[in-house]
Amino acid sequence: MKVSEIGEFGLIDLLAEMIGDVADDRLILTIGDDTAAWHGDTSIQLATVDSLIQDTYFSFDTASWEEVGWKALAVNLSDIAAMGGIPRYVLVSLSLPGNTEVENVIALYRGMLDLAHRFKVAIIGGNISNSPKVAIHVTVLGSALDKDSHILTRTTAQPGDKIVVTGQLGASNAGLKMLLEGLTFEPEATAAFRKAFLTPYPRITEGQQLVKYGVKTAVDISDGLIADLGHICQASKVGARLEVDHVPVSPHVQANFGGDALAMALTGGEEYQLLFTATPGQIDSVKAVISCPLAVIGEITAEHTGEIVLVDSDGNPVDLPGTGWDHFAKRK
Amino acid sequence: MKVSEIGEFGLIDLLAEMIGDVADDRLILTIGDDTAAWHGDTSIQLATVDSLIQDTYFSFDTASWEEVGWKALAVNLSDIAAMGGIPRYVLVSLSLPGNTEVENVIALYRGMLDLAHRFKVAIIGGNISNSPKVAIHVTVLGSALDKDSHILTRTTAQPGDKIVVTGQLGASNAGLKMLLEGLTFEPEATAAFRKAFLTPYPRITEGQQLVKYGVKTAVDISDGLIADLGHICQASKVGARLEVDHVPVSPHVQANFGGDALAMALTGGEEYQLLFTATPGQIDSVKAVISCPLAVIGEITAEHTGEIVLVDSDGNPVDLPGTGWDHFAKRK
Repeated sequence: MKVSEIGEFGLIDLLAEMIGDVADDRLILTIGDDTAAWHGDTSIQLATVDSLIQDTYFSFDTASWEEVGWKALAVNLSDIAAMGGIPRYVLVSLSLPGNTEVENVIALYRGMLDLAHRFKVAIIGGNISNSPKVAIHVTVLGSALDKDSHILTRTTAQPGDKIVVTGQLGASNAGLKMLLEGLTFEPEATAAFRKAFLTPYPRITEGQQLVKYGVKTAVDISDGLIADLGHICQASKVGARLEVDHVPVSPHVQANFGGDALAMALTGGEEYQLLFTATPGQIDSVKAVISCPLAVIGEITAEHTGEIVLVDSDGNPVDLPGTGWDHFAKRK
Repeated sequence: MKVSEIGEFGLIDLLAEMIGDVADDRLILTIGDDTAAWHGDTSIQLATVDSLIQDTYFSFDTASWEEVGWKALAVNLSDIAAMGGIPRYVLVSLSLPGNTEVENVIALYRGMLDLAHRFKVAIIGGNISNSPKVAIHVTVLGSALDKDSHILTRTTAQPGDKIVVTGQLGASNAGLKMLLEGLTFEPEATAAFRKAFLTPYPRITEGQQLVKYGVKTAVDISDGLIADLGHICQASKVGARLEVDHVPVSPHVQANFGGDALAMALTGGEEYQLLFTATPGQIDSVKAVISCPLAVIGEITAEHTGEIVLVDSDGNPVDLPGTGWDHFAKRK
């Protein structure tokens, strides 16, 4: 059996089973949430690793070294954001060919440091290795807000919780399509799509605000809204009713992709918005302080465990023609 | 300017300068020692990352997936050993082609878990990405022995300290040569060379014993004895007199490589023995408890800062013919 046949999630499940339960009563979360988490001497500690591989996840034909550096750190900070934590320290394991221009490596680090400085995160270590393609593996260490703070997990969604998403969706997917297919748009849309795909801004502040107002359940949207909502449903053993008319599609995506826009917002990965579940009271509290839009897009249900029912504004089930998604889309 | 022209250490120096001093009074060590280190809530915390890249650092023509898994973790545990710390948690960022056999990935993890279990280390997270070649980037988190324990650094060597090395040297380099050049030896030497190169046993226990008996200065031998002693000398702003006749060359290397054996022991990388400096009293205390051989191979000097003078047992300077090393070998 090949890895491509069981897929990334199949392989992760298999390895998680092999690793088994670890006899360490400090551990809170291991494989399967946005970060690992354990009880430190006082506060909860967090660690996550993610990688960008040249010509698999990005190409220097369409992205600058600086943008790749930013993104390599951003996707990891987004995992800390999804826990409502504070990112602190970064280790960078960088592979590159010997004939790489030094100034390109400097540009890559400039991109990482630009983002790191915004969140007072320090690059404290790393490793450089020789490889035919560029690969950036970034580990971020962080902690809960303070010694009494909880973290946001994917196992705590309750029937009756509202489903909420920060910001707007679809622009990262539009950026990927634009770069891959050489599409052209008016300058403002072009800039928005490029930024969404290559230099996303992790929702660190927003994740911390969720913790402060008692929200318990969140993920970042890295695999796509439906897929990541599916992760919450499976981990929490609940279902979800997703009101597609309330999904906040980026206006630039709406204007330029028309009939495909909703599907892009529902299934496009690498959006790095936060998806969370909360009570109406918690949502009102968060809305009063948060600086980004929040959209209530559905409700957690007791029935259809692990499944997501897509409905229109009248509550009728909908299919998404041409997307491969039906209204009982069951996601791994 | 290409990366290959300034080399790994040149690039690291440049990036370290770019990253600059981090305004974080908890940080103890960042780039430039075996691990990063900072003051946790009670004890000192450690983090390190290192990688193995297929066809650059290993080949599946000569190494099994299990051996590669072991080694990927071992080289990182060795960095924690060099700090005298306790390894605790591991994150694995694994890149592989989609057509990789799942059972090979399982064998890779079996190799990692075999070693992890010996030191009660838990794999708590990771990431899997798609890449044309296999690459394993391992991050290990650890801590000092307890809240009052110091860590071993490379900046604390003092003139008059003896230079000491654990175990024997040269067998890893012999293993590399054996696999690369298809050399054949008697079974016992073959096994010893293979083990030294592919499944080294990190000196975790020994590093902790050094801390307990007051030793302050250590590195693990990853770049080669002379190169790593050079790192201590530069970081501590001292010189070193290295008595080549006392260097513990592996008997198998001596028997099979004759005239090249000493040079292999002095310059071969990836040996993962500990190299430390200590007072004679500390050495006696450590010798009484440690289970591996210790060899005193020279002395730290105030003169020739950053340089290593190679001498014979009469104290006369020696050259190593045919190795490219002279007795003033200055190492970056």
